[in-house]
Amino acid sequence: MNGRNIVASEFVAGNEANLRAINPATGLLLDGDFVKASETAVNDALMAATIAFKNYRVLHKDKKAAFLNAIADEITNIGEVLVSRASAESGLPLARLQGELGRTTGQLRLFANLVAEGSWVDAVIDTAMPERQPLPRPDIRKMLVPIGPVVVFGASNFPLAFSVAGGDTASALASGCPVIVKAHPAHYGTSALVGEAIVKAVEKTGMPKGVFSLLFDDGYSIGSALVLHPQTKAVTFTGSYHGGMALVKLAQERKQPIPVFVEMGSINPIVLLPNAIKNKAEELAKKYAASITLGAGQFCTNPGLMLAISSAELETFKQVLTDEISKVPSATMLTEGIAKNYAKLSTEITAEDGVELIAASAVKNESLQNQSEARIAYVDAAKFIQNPKLHEEIFGPYSLLVVSKDIAELKKVIAVLEGQLTVTIMADSNELQQYQSLVHQLTDKTGRIILNGVPTGVEVCAAMQHGGPFPATNDSRFTSVGSSAIYRFVRPLAYQDWEQELLPDELKDDNPFGIFRMVNQLLTKDI
Amino acid sequence: MNGRNIVASEFVAGNEANLRAINPATGLLLDGDFVKASETAVNDALMAATIAFKNYRVLHKDKKAAFLNAIADEITNIGEVLVSRASAESGLPLARLQGELGRTTGQLRLFANLVAEGSWVDAVIDTAMPERQPLPRPDIRKMLVPIGPVVVFGASNFPLAFSVAGGDTASALASGCPVIVKAHPAHYGTSALVGEAIVKAVEKTGMPKGVFSLLFDDGYSIGSALVLHPQTKAVTFTGSYHGGMALVKLAQERKQPIPVFVEMGSINPIVLLPNAIKNKAEELAKKYAASITLGAGQFCTNPGLMLAISSAELETFKQVLTDEISKVPSATMLTEGIAKNYAKLSTEITAEDGVELIAASAVKNESLQNQSEARIAYVDAAKFIQNPKLHEEIFGPYSLLVVSKDIAELKKVIAVLEGQLTVTIMADSNELQQYQSLVHQLTDKTGRIILNGVPTGVEVCAAMQHGGPFPATNDSRFTSVGSSAIYRFVRPLAYQDWEQELLPDELKDDNPFGIFRMVNQLLTKDI
Repeated sequence: MNGRNIVASEFVAGNEANLRAINPATGLLLDGDFVKASETAVNDALMAATIAFKNYRVLHKDKKAAFLNAIADEITNIGEVLVSRASAESGLPLARLQGELGRTTGQLRLFANLVAEGSWVDAVIDTAMPERQPLPRPDIRKMLVPIGPVVVFGASNFPLAFSVAGGDTASALASGCPVIVKAHPAHYGTSALVGEAIVKAVEKTGMPKGVFSLLFDDGYSIGSALVLHPQTKAVTFTGSYHGGMALVKLAQERKQPIPVFVEMGSINPIVLLPNAIKNKAEELAKKYAASITLGAGQFCTNPGLMLAISSAELETFKQVLTDEISKVPSATMLTEGIAKNYAKLSTEITAEDGVELIAASAVKNESLQNQSEARIAYVDAAKFIQNPKLHEEIFGPYSLLVVSKDIAELKKVIAVLEGQLTVTIMADSNELQQYQSLVHQLTDKTGRIILNGVPTGVEVCAAMQHGGPFPATNDSRFTSVGSSAIYRFVRPLAYQDWEQELLPDELKDDNPFGIFRMVNQLLTKDI
Repeated sequence: MNGRNIVASEFVAGNEANLRAINPATGLLLDGDFVKASETAVNDALMAATIAFKNYRVLHKDKKAAFLNAIADEITNIGEVLVSRASAESGLPLARLQGELGRTTGQLRLFANLVAEGSWVDAVIDTAMPERQPLPRPDIRKMLVPIGPVVVFGASNFPLAFSVAGGDTASALASGCPVIVKAHPAHYGTSALVGEAIVKAVEKTGMPKGVFSLLFDDGYSIGSALVLHPQTKAVTFTGSYHGGMALVKLAQERKQPIPVFVEMGSINPIVLLPNAIKNKAEELAKKYAASITLGAGQFCTNPGLMLAISSAELETFKQVLTDEISKVPSATMLTEGIAKNYAKLSTEITAEDGVELIAASAVKNESLQNQSEARIAYVDAAKFIQNPKLHEEIFGPYSLLVVSKDIAELKKVIAVLEGQLTVTIMADSNELQQYQSLVHQLTDKTGRIILNGVPTGVEVCAAMQHGGPFPATNDSRFTSVGSSAIYRFVRPLAYQDWEQELLPDELKDDNPFGIFRMVNQLLTKDI
């Protein structure tokens, strides 16, 4: 494993190897020395990316697809070594990371297919009308083109799928933008291994070297320099509210505004309507106990809030939830910082007015460090509405059950909720019809609305929306999961009265790529 | 003409009528008393818009289309009264405003058609795979939904097409967002007339009243309050760099980030390649003399920069340009402020090192005020590259001819250019092939690239891109002209495992609207 920074697909020499990775389960240092990047490396990476962009942005779509597939191949080649390193660095179980590896390569191949198919560029052609009165209409054709170098911040909770070669990198590279990754300090080794895989893919497919750089840092200076660099054209980040908003504020200091995409998580309310609780209190309690504690609750779609209406059956739900949660063994959290923060917040919250701890894990693994204890708290609706502190995310296996007297009070609870990545409604069909205004109220608060399911498990597909109204994300118009993630890094470019031969293939009369295009307001694959 | 503010489609009483419109050609006050809006009106408008949004966002598409068509009808009904008032307030000729009226109603009808057809919502459906291993795939369906109340700033240079019922308002209403317009102080009367037309359309088509408000102000306080109001979900503005960036900065003070679209114009370079000048120096000079002086040069796509290579034929071009410009009569500018600023900047620029005035209008209408004199300046490439002041827009009938020694120097000139709304290349086919790297260099700087044409005249169509890299706009990913302008005001919303009956029509299995949808990765109108 090479712990040096990668600038323009080359390992850069110099600087002291002064960063080490820690196993959060043991607190021990892991193998490997990693180099804290310099500001020179930031500038070199951005300048190389700017030069590479000139060629990469006009590269044939099949070559870009081959590059993405090659990254997936190289990552697959590391296989078990990568999974075990990621597990050692994150405390996440091997099986989970095997799944995440599959998701990561799947994402890369999904974007390869999207790019190879080609219709994603949204080509629109309005042909000339030389005879039009009073003025002739010119020939205008537009398509999406990449915006330039993208800075990707690796996320702590997905060391593979949202890090060096994760969804942000895959979608940015697919769009035609070079990528500079700032590795997450919680998994240097995983980052280095994936970085090497990308370097190999760059070599094997003959990409311009500046398309990829990877920088290490244990503080904020490199990240800040990346966001502020004039050649940076977009930034992506998945993490906490405070981290995300710090980046948004930092980017506001730039002379040139750029798109910044920060996904800050949310509390993902579950709305339990009366009949759902009446008919399947026990089933629901089991389902949510599992969803709340999945991956030690370290998902941005973790259900941190359950909204219900008081009833006899709700007591059954509470009882089963308490029993189930007590049986969930403690789990290693991603970092010492996250574990401490979780322990602090999930304890302190029970000191808030009217908040009562109703369930807690009773199975603690004493031999491991940074263990999370699952906790469920309870509060009545009136107290919840009054106390904004209760509306904030607690990252980990925690959820708050808020009980209203009736639907009217439930609506008041919903009214004070902020924007969410997901909202889930548990209901039978009659209820949904009956409470349509409540459903509309909920859709205005979220990017994805789920019926009778769990919010954890974010399907990577074309229809996925992972991004919601503020503060779930800073820009609800985009998604960071699924094929639409590519649209974060492109802008339309229109060609007026351009020569056929010099048009991009996507816009030529004879449609050489056979893609869908909007031609004179008709969507067609024809000429 | 009613000069009161319109809040939620009603004329609000109270406050002193203390604003008057001025005829820039005469400096005289025009008929009509207009009321400076209060901060209370701002809050009332936003709260009404928020309430109206609940119903308007889920209104059947045909009703929204009928509303947009009704606005077009009502504006057409005012007809000559509106055109003559707009002319009196703006100094623009009647014929130009008749054309602009047609463009305005055309835009409204274009969006009505877009909404009625329905495919613009980009519906994507990935159906369930209950048997998939290791985990079943849920049913996920997404479509674009409106984001909420939009604040539109009327523009000075298009009193109809970019003002109260202009492209911003039309696209926002089409998307399902209520609109609050801040009238431009240069045309209160035009704004009031169009506002009345929208109020009539709201009544006739039974829209929720909060979908439209119109506020007057001669300063910045109402605009600022609108941008800062927590219920405002997007802002659009077309105007100067300083005005646009002030709004961007103001919006950054908000707790909740929102999309702000400012179109700040550009200098729209014309690149005159050698053969083009060699073969048609005279024709080109005449073409650009006309484009530079069209509408007193008060277009965001006005060609403010001509880049050429030294040659004998270029001397012909200069000579013909000088002759043509001298014949262009002076014209009334939009406001006294704009006229004074133009006179100041277009005079001061000739004091810059190496800048020489080579052409000026010699026909001045002494009987009218705020007259613009067309001016062309000359500078060599080296001096241009050194002096950033020469790269800035001078709003009015002004253009700067920058002459390079050769293609290499021309590329250096292009390298220092900032982002543009348009770039125009004059060339023959051989040249374009020969200078492909120069063409790529130019495409990275612009939202629209034109071959052998003029940038003025922005076609309203699906393929138009009116928005370019900073500082032309603050967000090159969007357009303010053409049907794609609707995408500024929407976000995707995904439904997971939702009941058929409760899905929006756009996402139901049987595709009741018969729209194009991406179903399991195939674009189809089928089920």
